[in-house]
Amino acid sequence: MNPVMQLLRSHRSIRKFTDQPVADELINDIVRCGQAAATSSNLQATTVIRVRNPDTRCAIAQLAGDQEYVGTAGAFLVFCADLSRSRQACEMQGGDFVPGMTEHFIIATVDVALFAQNCAIAAESAGLGICYIGGIRNDPAGVTALLDLPDQVYPVFGFCLGYPAQDPEVKPRLPLSVVLKEEQYQAAADPDGIQRYDDQLRQYYRTRTGGTKDSNWTLEMRDLVGKESRPHMRGFLKTRGFTMR
Amino acid sequence: MNPVMQLLRSHRSIRKFTDQPVADELINDIVRCGQAAATSSNLQATTVIRVRNPDTRCAIAQLAGDQEYVGTAGAFLVFCADLSRSRQACEMQGGDFVPGMTEHFIIATVDVALFAQNCAIAAESAGLGICYIGGIRNDPAGVTALLDLPDQVYPVFGFCLGYPAQDPEVKPRLPLSVVLKEEQYQAAADPDGIQRYDDQLRQYYRTRTGGTKDSNWTLEMRDLVGKESRPHMRGFLKTRGFTMR
Repeated sequence: MNPVMQLLRSHRSIRKFTDQPVADELINDIVRCGQAAATSSNLQATTVIRVRNPDTRCAIAQLAGDQEYVGTAGAFLVFCADLSRSRQACEMQGGDFVPGMTEHFIIATVDVALFAQNCAIAAESAGLGICYIGGIRNDPAGVTALLDLPDQVYPVFGFCLGYPAQDPEVKPRLPLSVVLKEEQYQAAADPDGIQRYDDQLRQYYRTRTGGTKDSNWTLEMRDLVGKESRPHMRGFLKTRGFTMR
Repeated sequence: MNPVMQLLRSHRSIRKFTDQPVADELINDIVRCGQAAATSSNLQATTVIRVRNPDTRCAIAQLAGDQEYVGTAGAFLVFCADLSRSRQACEMQGGDFVPGMTEHFIIATVDVALFAQNCAIAAESAGLGICYIGGIRNDPAGVTALLDLPDQVYPVFGFCLGYPAQDPEVKPRLPLSVVLKEEQYQAAADPDGIQRYDDQLRQYYRTRTGGTKDSNWTLEMRDLVGKESRPHMRGFLKTRGFTMR
């Protein structure tokens, strides 16, 4: 693997940061790298809001589930899926914006993620650590109010970045044989892969927590997809114009 | 900007490839890099299907809107959002999978995009060119049948990769001042930014096509969000268990 691939494979979320500030010009370059990612039909649906105000950051930290580092990281960004700008562009050309298409929701959401992942790589290449904050979807209406987001815009995730004050291990992933398939889905390509990963992940958690965390992947998934997750999202998106038709 | 940032900023879609094959081990390493991306609550919702069969690739090329390079690129992958695997894991622990949550759809779709963008960077770092193929959503049911995708899995996009046989310019993006905002949305932060970009993009298309393509961003957006886009997506997703509740 080349050095870029090694960088990619060294990712781990950073949740403790030094007090060293992140230079504005570095943030700008990181966001420029985000802009360079592919975008569906040149939609460019990503809007990034940099939040500096300590009160706003504290409010978002709380609604995201008391994630303190949202308030304390060197910088905090909110990545928004934005069809408001393309709507404006459409109307500048005399077009009638067609709201609520599921396809538009998908391409905007994918756009944001591609953009953000480029930002993650750029940040890590500059010695920063990052952490995605999906927890802002605990209260997307609250975030929308704090950031004054217009209709046709929704906050997809937050993003902490800063200079790392911790050096956690890289978390193991599912075996390649489980996630990469040939020709067709072939659910049974590696029937024992999940079990092997369960064992590996349990060992990782035990080592990392000095034995206090005893879990594995299948238990994590039972807790994630075996219950309702943010059931307000559907209604929230509807209020912002994403009616999913 | 450091070399990694320069690599990120040099991206352009490649649609013409040499005959040089892409080594299997390189594809594997690229997918391993994808796996290293952040994943929401360790969901790991990405399944990658490598399609080698020429007939399948030709069929996908056609349904994606006659994108010939889907058939001819050094390698072709389909990135799927997969809740089937986490459902299986949940059930292995005696849990009852909760289907159809909009939030689960979002985290799975974001997972896939983060994973794929890492693959894009890894591929480009190794001298390959790539092109995302959103066109597979022209006929997602057809792709689902060809790849034998189970319930709770949907094909998000295809992905061509191979050694470039063209060297296109990098496409200009919206001004940074339009996509990066401070504290709040501030629609009017750079009111002339879209107009400046329209002029720049028109010049880019003229230069690139020898004057035959005369368009700009606002015209592109009128054609993209000023009409229905893949109106079958909602119904298709519903048939796969993504009921968006």
